[in-house]
Amino acid sequence: MCRWLAYSGSPILLEELLYKPVHSLIDQSQHSRMGVETTNGDGFGVGWYGLDEAPSLPGTRRSDEPVLFRGVGPAWGDQNLRELARSTSSGLFLAHIRASTGTPVQQSNCHPFRHGRWLWVHNGAIRDFSVLKRDLVMAVDPELYPFMAGSTDSEVMFFLALTFGLHEDTIGAVERMAGFVEAVGRAHGVDEPLQMTVATTDGERLWGFRYSSIGQSRTLYVSTALSTLRQMYPDNPVFSELDDETRIVVSEPLGDLKGAWNPVPESSFGIVEAGDDTLGRFQPREP
Amino acid sequence: MCRWLAYSGSPILLEELLYKPVHSLIDQSQHSRMGVETTNGDGFGVGWYGLDEAPSLPGTRRSDEPVLFRGVGPAWGDQNLRELARSTSSGLFLAHIRASTGTPVQQSNCHPFRHGRWLWVHNGAIRDFSVLKRDLVMAVDPELYPFMAGSTDSEVMFFLALTFGLHEDTIGAVERMAGFVEAVGRAHGVDEPLQMTVATTDGERLWGFRYSSIGQSRTLYVSTALSTLRQMYPDNPVFSELDDETRIVVSEPLGDLKGAWNPVPESSFGIVEAGDDTLGRFQPREP
Amino acid sequence: MCRWLAYSGSPILLEELLYKPVHSLIDQSQHSRMGVETTNGDGFGVGWYGLDEAPSLPGTRRSDEPVLFRGVGPAWGDQNLRELARSTSSGLFLAHIRASTGTPVQQSNCHPFRHGRWLWVHNGAIRDFSVLKRDLVMAVDPELYPFMAGSTDSEVMFFLALTFGLHEDTIGAVERMAGFVEAVGRAHGVDEPLQMTVATTDGERLWGFRYSSIGQSRTLYVSTALSTLRQMYPDNPVFSELDDETRIVVSEPLGDLKGAWNPVPESSFGIVEAGDDTLGRFQPREP
Amino acid sequence: MCRWLAYSGSPILLEELLYKPVHSLIDQSQHSRMGVETTNGDGFGVGWYGLDEAPSLPGTRRSDEPVLFRGVGPAWGDQNLRELARSTSSGLFLAHIRASTGTPVQQSNCHPFRHGRWLWVHNGAIRDFSVLKRDLVMAVDPELYPFMAGSTDSEVMFFLALTFGLHEDTIGAVERMAGFVEAVGRAHGVDEPLQMTVATTDGERLWGFRYSSIGQSRTLYVSTALSTLRQMYPDNPVFSELDDETRIVVSEPLGDLKGAWNPVPESSFGIVEAGDDTLGRFQPREP
Repeated sequence: MCRWLAYSGSPILLEELLYKPVHSLIDQSQHSRMGVETTNGDGFGVGWYGLDEAPSLPGTRRSDEPVLFRGVGPAWGDQNLRELARSTSSGLFLAHIRASTGTPVQQSNCHPFRHGRWLWVHNGAIRDFSVLKRDLVMAVDPELYPFMAGSTDSEVMFFLALTFGLHEDTIGAVERMAGFVEAVGRAHGVDEPLQMTVATTDGERLWGFRYSSIGQSRTLYVSTALSTLRQMYPDNPVFSELDDETRIVVSEPLGDLKGAWNPVPESSFGIVEAGDDTLGRFQPREP
Repeated sequence: MCRWLAYSGSPILLEELLYKPVHSLIDQSQHSRMGVETTNGDGFGVGWYGLDEAPSLPGTRRSDEPVLFRGVGPAWGDQNLRELARSTSSGLFLAHIRASTGTPVQQSNCHPFRHGRWLWVHNGAIRDFSVLKRDLVMAVDPELYPFMAGSTDSEVMFFLALTFGLHEDTIGAVERMAGFVEAVGRAHGVDEPLQMTVATTDGERLWGFRYSSIGQSRTLYVSTALSTLRQMYPDNPVFSELDDETRIVVSEPLGDLKGAWNPVPESSFGIVEAGDDTLGRFQPREP
Repeated sequence: MCRWLAYSGSPILLEELLYKPVHSLIDQSQHSRMGVETTNGDGFGVGWYGLDEAPSLPGTRRSDEPVLFRGVGPAWGDQNLRELARSTSSGLFLAHIRASTGTPVQQSNCHPFRHGRWLWVHNGAIRDFSVLKRDLVMAVDPELYPFMAGSTDSEVMFFLALTFGLHEDTIGAVERMAGFVEAVGRAHGVDEPLQMTVATTDGERLWGFRYSSIGQSRTLYVSTALSTLRQMYPDNPVFSELDDETRIVVSEPLGDLKGAWNPVPESSFGIVEAGDDTLGRFQPREP
Repeated sequence: MCRWLAYSGSPILLEELLYKPVHSLIDQSQHSRMGVETTNGDGFGVGWYGLDEAPSLPGTRRSDEPVLFRGVGPAWGDQNLRELARSTSSGLFLAHIRASTGTPVQQSNCHPFRHGRWLWVHNGAIRDFSVLKRDLVMAVDPELYPFMAGSTDSEVMFFLALTFGLHEDTIGAVERMAGFVEAVGRAHGVDEPLQMTVATTDGERLWGFRYSSIGQSRTLYVSTALSTLRQMYPDNPVFSELDDETRIVVSEPLGDLKGAWNPVPESSFGIVEAGDDTLGRFQPREP
């Protein structure tokens, strides 16, 4: 299984979500309440987009790519993650804690996965993945194929989405990926193979998805709009500081504050972007 | 054995010294030229002092401590280090690659060691350390004792220096530590026990030391003053960018540029600070 | 916290206890029922005494020491442990899964600890260990001091017991260790510091201990005598195969078989050896 | 790059070849003399076939598969490998130390690779593997495809050989694999892609291969026949103990004993089996 979170908004230290909340992601690595397992100790990862550029020396270019930090041990004990989280700020980041559904515990199987400026995290699984894997992998664009480093269904889903146009039509690409996985499942006699919550981002916008073939998906929540939270909690200094664009999408709520967390419906997508955010219906398509 | 580097000056990306030079620290992890071993693959670490503060949420305080990132695998293959180095800038940092002299390979035995705002790296060893260890450790201030997390001679040397006044009289404290190690050695029939190059910093000034009881110390180099380098290489764009305070202290030169690297003499200390830097004679003292 | 098991009897594959029971030690690494935490994912270890000698080449001597295998990752995902367990047989072994009580996750902090032919595992903690550590460590025999490789209270307890005569008077040595820990606690204003279940063995006999200063100790169970189990379950083929000496001591039962598991009383020790086994009262002593 | 060794003969402790010789495999992990790199610190592995069966409990079957132990850290520092090697005997084992040629350092990328009773180690590389990988992987039998766990060229070569009949016609299968790799290379404009020394075994016989498209292969040596060694060194007690079938195949000699090591010619295969061993010419074939 797994748990993940995605943040977009005013720059904050990573530790504000990874460690500090009463039910932070680190807490969820040992005491997940809504997951298949309470423990998510098979690795972790964070991907973030940097803030200001530090001065560069002549002849050097700072990379546009998000930074990736992934470890194979349990998140709860990782000292380097603790150090990073207390010293790194970002206005857009994805974090993930892993419970393997069968593939090896190794850094190349930790989320987020990255390709260019894109990041991807996934909670769920493709049922009977070992039976379907070859057909799924073969549908990945041959130009993209060499970039798949691990052995997870999650990574294959990402690269199928990239193949089906994640850059140009993000929602459509993920819908085509879902449709393709279900079609391959049918071809192999595997019913209702797909179970997914997914977050993906290109460094500007953040997309969240909640879907399963069986119609009973892993949990997913989105935070209430900041403007509403400020009205509900006018004395809360944190809400006063964060800008209106701030949004958190997360497998399970980071705390118990009333009215702060909203379940994302089954078969839905959401877009977090400048201005209004969108919630819409997710429907697998023919690829 | 080990190799280390210390940088103080204009903020630069860590990768400028860790990865980019022809004989970078990462290169030295596999192809050290001047060390006891060519390979330094028993872990690594970087400690750095941050630049600007990112905005903090109300009620939070950003820590003053330097950030520490240490790994137990060989530095040459660590993906997280690569990511960190290309995305982290600092005007003051220490980095170290380890070749164990007998104690276990574990994160708590990787340098830099940190205490409060202080960082410490060491190349060398205390001969017959297992014989001398108890007496050395017992001389560490009992208030400091619980902070020793590992089992290396390097860490004990740091905590002895802290005990002997590293905060108030840095040179004197390290001289007293060296004198004490040699005295304990004599008491146990271990002649000429100490072999060390050391860098330590409090986030403002940077001290380097080169000393061995036997008078044949591990190599140590300091970079030529930037003002001189600009005269020698007026077309070099990097030298034009770096400020006059910039100084690198390193176990072995990062490259072959003529006139850029100067051996630190035997039994010496150096201070890198605002204004003129100092080179002086290092002499172990009675503690 | 932690969980452990100790086996003495007919040689069996390690997997028979580590993996196969419904509530095996590996299951307990994720779903401990009686521990402080459900998860014990901060490392693991097994120590076993070998069976027959394989032919040796001239000039070689097979070591008498038990074999030690310790890993820093969660036991549930360790492929090497799985391989080892399905291919290694022993008539006497200790296994342990760790939940750190504050000290680093590293191999030198995993149990069992070994010294000569002795192995030691511990579940529990010394309260305020960082305050008491220096006095405890200083009481370890200086000849033994260099052999302490890690930073746990568990290891210090082992070396104190060795100092107080573990070889010659095992029960007495552990009682003196317990008394000393409590005395040092009193001297520092730490009441009721000791919490322990311990197993230790010299390759011949196996000792188990259950004691806490507070009188509410971590759980400990011992298996019913094989002769009795055979009477209770005459059709059970496993019980027919195992010899009468076979005994398992374990933090929590490996399964739910009625009458197979017996709680070890508070403040008790047990000795598993050829012939009758012993259960007696454990009382801390002045060292 | 990499180094490996294969042993077949009288059962010996693994440490006899892994640790004890003057230029043991562990020594080669830091001081390889004949390899591309002196350091092979990107993981290691050993696969061995067990000796006698320990008593099994009713209802259990000991697996026929060889045991596999693989670690991601440098072999020279691995404590578990040291323990295993001093306590494990085998009459047939393969061991490997890795220097990555580009793919991640992870356990699933360590050799030996295993499938059923087969083990496989490889030194060398497929040039421009990322360009050729998709076509190579697609030629693997779909029934075997799900068993590929890693991302190395070495593992793909193994599974291609399995696809081309490794069980039934071992030499032919490896020749067909080599021919296929070269054909795919040509199709993508990659000349002379294959560089390989390989050892593979089914638990009965041991095959060694030395071939490269370019005709300049990595080094490979085979030990002199025991009967001859006994004549050359009549006072050597080790040679008296080992049976006539004993043979070592190795990337570079484990020591300097005159006449003990024989280079395997370019484009050769060897079979180590009961009775006479075979050396023959290796020629890639159309698959």
